[in-house]
This record gives sequence, C-alpha cells and structure tokens, in this order.
Amino acid sequence: MKEQGPLDQLIKAFAGLPALGPRSARRIALHLLTHKDSAMKPLMRALEKTLTEIKVCENCGNLDLADLCRICTDPKRDDSLLCVVEGIADLWAIERTGSYKGRYHILGGVLSALDGIGPDQLKIRELVARTEKNNIQEIIIALGATVDGQTTAHYISDKITDIAGNNIRITRLAHGVPIGGALDYLDDGTITTALKSRSAV
Amino acid sequence: MKEQGPLDQLIKAFAGLPALGPRSARRIALHLLTHKDSAMKPLMRALEKTLTEIKVCENCGNLDLADLCRICTDPKRDDSLLCVVEGIADLWAIERTGSYKGRYHILGGVLSALDGIGPDQLKIRELVARTEKNNIQEIIIALGATVDGQTTAHYISDKITDIAGNNIRITRLAHGVPIGGALDYLDDGTITTALKSRSAV
Repeated sequence: MKEQGPLDQLIKAFAGLPALGPRSARRIALHLLTHKDSAMKPLMRALEKTLTEIKVCENCGNLDLADLCRICTDPKRDDSLLCVVEGIADLWAIERTGSYKGRYHILGGVLSALDGIGPDQLKIRELVARTEKNNIQEIIIALGATVDGQTTAHYISDKITDIAGNNIRITRLAHGVPIGGALDYLDDGTITTALKSRSAV
Repeated sequence: MKEQGPLDQLIKAFAGLPALGPRSARRIALHLLTHKDSAMKPLMRALEKTLTEIKVCENCGNLDLADLCRICTDPKRDDSLLCVVEGIADLWAIERTGSYKGRYHILGGVLSALDGIGPDQLKIRELVARTEKNNIQEIIIALGATVDGQTTAHYISDKITDIAGNNIRITRLAHGVPIGGALDYLDDGTITTALKSRSAV
C-alpha cells in the first residue's frame, strides 16, 4: 500500500518545501500523525495565525504584525542609513548580529538575465522613491557576492547616483576571510579579494 | 528584529520536526509566507484533512482512512503470513517493494532498556493475541539489525514459541551486502554476516 488520500497529499505538500525531499516529508508526516497534540495541532495553529496576522511592511518589505514593521516605526533607528538586501532572510541575518541600527529596503530578488528578472520585478523604483523623499546619507548594498548580486549592486548604485549625485554615499559589505575560516578551505576569489583589501594589523 | 509572534511560533513548530533545524525551519516559513496560495494553504488543507480523516488501524496499527486498513481488509492477502515491523515507515518501505503479500503487525517501537521501553509499551500482547486467534503459519520479524531490534526479535520469538510451540515458523530478514553496495564502504559486521551466510552462485 502506498500512502493514501490526505496523507499522500500531506507528504506531497511537505516534499515541495525547501530543504525537504520525499523521504524527510514522509518522516515529518508520520511524526505529526503520531504526535497529534504535541506537534500537529501546534503547527496548524501557528500556520493559521501566521496566515492571518503576518503582513508585509509597505515601506521596506519586511514581515511583521502591522502594515508598517517595527524597524520602520522604531524612532531609535537611524533614518540616514538604508541597507538594501535581497530578501527577508538577509534582513533577519543582519538583525541577528545586532550591529546595524539603520533602516532596510528589501528588493525581493536580484537582477538575473537567466531567470528573466529585470528591474521592474524588483523594488528598485520604490528604493529610488525612498531615497528621494527621505534624508538618507548612506545606502549600504548588502547583496550576495554572486554575479547577479554584483550586477544588481552596480545597477542600483548607478540609479541612485543619477538622482542624488554624490550627496548619498553608496557602500557595500566588505569581502574577505570569514571569522573562524581556515585559508586552505577558501576559494581563490575570496583569498584574492582578501589580499587586495588587506589592512594594517 | 527577531522573527516575532506567530511567525516565531511557526518557525519553532517547524524546527521541532524531524530532519529540520532552526535554519531550514526559517527557510520553510519564509517560503510559505511568500507562496501563500501555492504552498501555505495547500499544506494547511492537507494537515486539516489528515488530522480528521486518517485513523490508526485497530488490527495492525497502520494508518488509513478506515479503522481497519486496506491491508487488513484486502481478501487477496495471505492470512498465514504475518510481518512484524517496528513502525509505519517500515511497513511503507516493505510495501514499496511490492514483494510481500501477507499481513502486518506494527509494534510501535523496540525494547530498549536505555529508553525505558518494556514489553508493555509495545503491541506484543496484541501480537500474541493475533497469533492465537488466526491461522498464522509464519511470522517474519522485520526489525532493524540493531542490538535493541535483535533483543526484541528474540523476545517475540520466545513468546510465540511459548504459546504455539513449533506450529508457527519464525523467520527474520536476511543480513548481507546491500544490492549495489561496494564492499569497502561496508562495516565489518555486515561483511562477517555476509560471509557466514554465503550461498552457491
């Protein structure tokens, strides 16, 4: 007997999620069915609450309980600093460090000729509008160190310079050896960049 | 900002599932929120249907839409053969092969002194009752080749012999080299067993 009906659908629904394949989806479905009260019902409640209560921030694209997220409405944050990220996961990653106190702007992706993603699919127009309206002094472009990420960074940089000239500083994250990283496990590109950007001890 | 409220709970609920950690749980939660109609709602519907419609078979412990599962009610299956497995995943694994046409009995675990699992926590009494009532000729003990699995196999074998003498054949799965397995990746125990159980070509 194969898994049947609703159970089969449940396994399919799990198998379609990132990081999960059919085998782990089966394990999860079985776990839920054998732990209905401790795992299945709490998960269902959390899904229900998330679906109804979590909203996308109109300003930056972050997810939160209100239409304007906590970061955008926090009066203690620095309005002159704007960090541009690809997605919400990147915003979370930077927030976890606790070392950034400016605002964010989520692009919703990066330019990609291969995937057919042009400037209109991303929140670039919204970014330009924000920089025109607000008193931003520095835009930190925190995109991945991939070809698409770097292309997008250059595109955004050009757009901002077009409207603001040199009034807005445009920066990017530093490249180099990750903290705790062993040199012989690093790729050549990173080592080359780290050498070029070397600093006095 | 950390993930907040319902989203935080959703991530926690996912992170508690087998095969998932906090990082993949975050990825999944984000994927669901950015694909509400194509991923989140189907998953919620599948969970709801599974919770209400899937039942545990009273006879063998399998999961199905009815109180007696398809395997137990299938008239074409061989009543004289009973395969004892640890859990539902093992039943599914055997069913996927399509090479077994008898009935099943799910123990719900294996004896484990370390985890405090004794015979009363498993469906051993039910197994004995089934062998007493029905005309079973062979019991295949398909438990894992672990210490606990083998201990459980011996315990069950003794119990069945106590009530049925030599009227019921008790067998176990063969041990040996997996199909497609390279010898130099195999552990010593498997090679030793495969050598001992060698057969003519």
